[in-house]
Amino acid sequence: MEMIDILYKKRNGEALTKEEINYFVQGYNEERIPDYQMSALLMAIYFKGMNKTETVNLTNAIIDSGDRIDLSMIEGLKVDKHSTGGVGDKTTIALGALVAANNVPVAKLSGRGLGHTGGTIDKLEAIPGFSADLSIEKFSEQVNKIKFSLGGQTKDLAPADKKLYALRDVTATIDNISLIASSVMSKKLASGADRIVLDVKTGSGAFMKDIDQAFTLGRAMVDIGNGVGKDTVAIVTDMEQPLGNTIGNGIEVREAIELLKGQGSKDLLEICRYLGSYMLLLAEKVSSLKEGMEKIQEVIDNGKAFKVFKDFVKSQGGDIKYIDQPELLHQTKGVYEYKATKDGYIHQIDAELIGKCALTLGAGRLDKSTEIDHRVGLDFLKKIGSFISKGETIVKVYYNDNNKLNDSLGLLEKSLEISDGFRTVPKIIHGVVTKEGEKRL
Amino acid sequence: MEMIDILYKKRNGEALTKEEINYFVQGYNEERIPDYQMSALLMAIYFKGMNKTETVNLTNAIIDSGDRIDLSMIEGLKVDKHSTGGVGDKTTIALGALVAANNVPVAKLSGRGLGHTGGTIDKLEAIPGFSADLSIEKFSEQVNKIKFSLGGQTKDLAPADKKLYALRDVTATIDNISLIASSVMSKKLASGADRIVLDVKTGSGAFMKDIDQAFTLGRAMVDIGNGVGKDTVAIVTDMEQPLGNTIGNGIEVREAIELLKGQGSKDLLEICRYLGSYMLLLAEKVSSLKEGMEKIQEVIDNGKAFKVFKDFVKSQGGDIKYIDQPELLHQTKGVYEYKATKDGYIHQIDAELIGKCALTLGAGRLDKSTEIDHRVGLDFLKKIGSFISKGETIVKVYYNDNNKLNDSLGLLEKSLEISDGFRTVPKIIHGVVTKEGEKRL
Repeated sequence: MEMIDILYKKRNGEALTKEEINYFVQGYNEERIPDYQMSALLMAIYFKGMNKTETVNLTNAIIDSGDRIDLSMIEGLKVDKHSTGGVGDKTTIALGALVAANNVPVAKLSGRGLGHTGGTIDKLEAIPGFSADLSIEKFSEQVNKIKFSLGGQTKDLAPADKKLYALRDVTATIDNISLIASSVMSKKLASGADRIVLDVKTGSGAFMKDIDQAFTLGRAMVDIGNGVGKDTVAIVTDMEQPLGNTIGNGIEVREAIELLKGQGSKDLLEICRYLGSYMLLLAEKVSSLKEGMEKIQEVIDNGKAFKVFKDFVKSQGGDIKYIDQPELLHQTKGVYEYKATKDGYIHQIDAELIGKCALTLGAGRLDKSTEIDHRVGLDFLKKIGSFISKGETIVKVYYNDNNKLNDSLGLLEKSLEISDGFRTVPKIIHGVVTKEGEKRL
Repeated sequence: MEMIDILYKKRNGEALTKEEINYFVQGYNEERIPDYQMSALLMAIYFKGMNKTETVNLTNAIIDSGDRIDLSMIEGLKVDKHSTGGVGDKTTIALGALVAANNVPVAKLSGRGLGHTGGTIDKLEAIPGFSADLSIEKFSEQVNKIKFSLGGQTKDLAPADKKLYALRDVTATIDNISLIASSVMSKKLASGADRIVLDVKTGSGAFMKDIDQAFTLGRAMVDIGNGVGKDTVAIVTDMEQPLGNTIGNGIEVREAIELLKGQGSKDLLEICRYLGSYMLLLAEKVSSLKEGMEKIQEVIDNGKAFKVFKDFVKSQGGDIKYIDQPELLHQTKGVYEYKATKDGYIHQIDAELIGKCALTLGAGRLDKSTEIDHRVGLDFLKKIGSFISKGETIVKVYYNDNNKLNDSLGLLEKSLEISDGFRTVPKIIHGVVTKEGEKRL
């Protein structure tokens, strides 16, 4: 087999065989195929696409480039949830407790990630003492005992994906559905989950700006999951504005705790009930979406979810004081109250700009060496569709550095749009993609 | 300016500016832009194409990567002829004399090239003593004196083209019209000609297998030439079967000499009259195609062209005995007469296979280190459309090595098709592309 023949084949719009896909993934991972041929192939794939079978084969080839995590020590069907990434997205933290409280094991392996805020581990590290450095044995034991654990990824999962992604990043070949879907799913599938619920974000703060594209990506990922025999569902959710009220690290944990205590923001609750219900469905704990939602609400109302969360934090070394007084999680030198300069309806809170605003405050990192500030963040008192009077506070900005605050306020101002006309509250759930088909809401 | 932005722009189908094109050609030539970004861009260009302005700018950028040859010492309008390459193509040799005999300077700079037979210099080196190693001064003097000279390319013409071509070759991005056209034209334009006549071959033995594609390529090259102010014409000619009767080196020189003496094969004569007439037109020596054809025929009939050729060979050190007895140019150990095994019309002489056959005999080289055998070659007594009787000789094979002969005969047999049905003689000239438009014949 020769790479040049594979290149001609894809360029001419033909489907590649499993052997050809294995050949180039393995060859590239082992540095036998040069960057310049791989990037030309990626561009040809960008233009000619990959069909369902090719995409499943690509995903498998990427998984085979590295380790697979063995979660067989954990009892029960393990359902993983993955989000394509958004601003203010603390669902993993809340959902872990909500699902575990329903007796479904949540064995979450997470990375740190680069972006406007930290990843799930970074957020939870806002709790003094909390650590995700668990051996796979301790991790599994904890799941068996309290049904919820969060570990760091230590194994070499899907190394070919890292290499391919780095090349795509510098060759304008990121945004192809098959390449995105196989990248996400290879890492998920290598992590050992039995079933997968995907949260595909769409809107200004998401990778997929367009709703149709988000459904297409959902479809592609669901096809991959089911193609390798792991039941997968994708929920397309809104990311026009940040999710929930808070953006940061500690401050997002506070919001997740509020939700578990029945005081969460409406949009976050809606997403958690939706995603949680699908997790219970896939785990075969309930038989309908409605029943699942009721079960999720039940563990909020009866305090079970909050108790699981507390056990989880304690078990991983976290100081429980911060769970009982979650406002400690975002204690900063100063709080700036950003006020409305006129009466009107909030028409826009641009999620992407708010993400940059949080990053500017110090909540995120763009390279691995940067330390993040767990305390800074934003807390919105009003969101899109709310009426606001001149002088009323829209958002509280928790900051530790005056210069960073000043830089972030410019972004904040740009992100907001207030005008006279009435504005409806945006839809949160756009629809669901399952094995059976697609349902738009 | 950043290469990644140029990549996104072209990938999204936008036209690149002159500055962007200069940036990536210069950057790649100077090894500041890595192969993997360049190959991704080439693939994006393959899919999205380049418009006329972009293609002209690309050509200029490639020219600017190296030297330009200064032919200003030569008196008169210099018209260059370039062929996209075919099997048995000895037109340059014959045309040089035919045009020079009409008092138009022919200052031909040629490479050696790789392929089924040698390049023009290799072919003429079949004449003992002949050398193309001339200084630019001696070269120019000779053109001023006898109107015809052939020099080797010593300057570093269009080095970016060499680098780009090498990358295209391994990334399946050769066959894009803009990339092909700019590659050919950059080298031509750097060679200092005032006007250019292009012979675009089409058919099984040509790079452009398809007639429409050949016209498109002709159009693109004519647009480039005229875009930089050098009058350019493209003639689309047939390469379904080899041109003329002979394929080899010395044997092709013999056929060119026969033509100059009025004994040439009909198809070669037709092409030479056509191309030659356009060269005289562009050189402003004649005012119509018809007048040009008459002038070409005139210098054959009155012996002037043959005399110019003899002077040219003598001036470059060649042994004139071989011009007076041109059969010496292909004296080999043996001659194999390949005979028809049945009666019928010749339906096919596959040019590509005949090229491989000549290469197998030793007439060509695939890498620079190979010595070519100037004496071996093929001489067709009959061509497509001829009736042939069982036992009649179709082609004489001049060989020096029995093993090579045996290998070549298999290819020869595969290339020929004889059957009962009548077959017309193929058209030689398919049409012309000029500044004004396209004319198909």
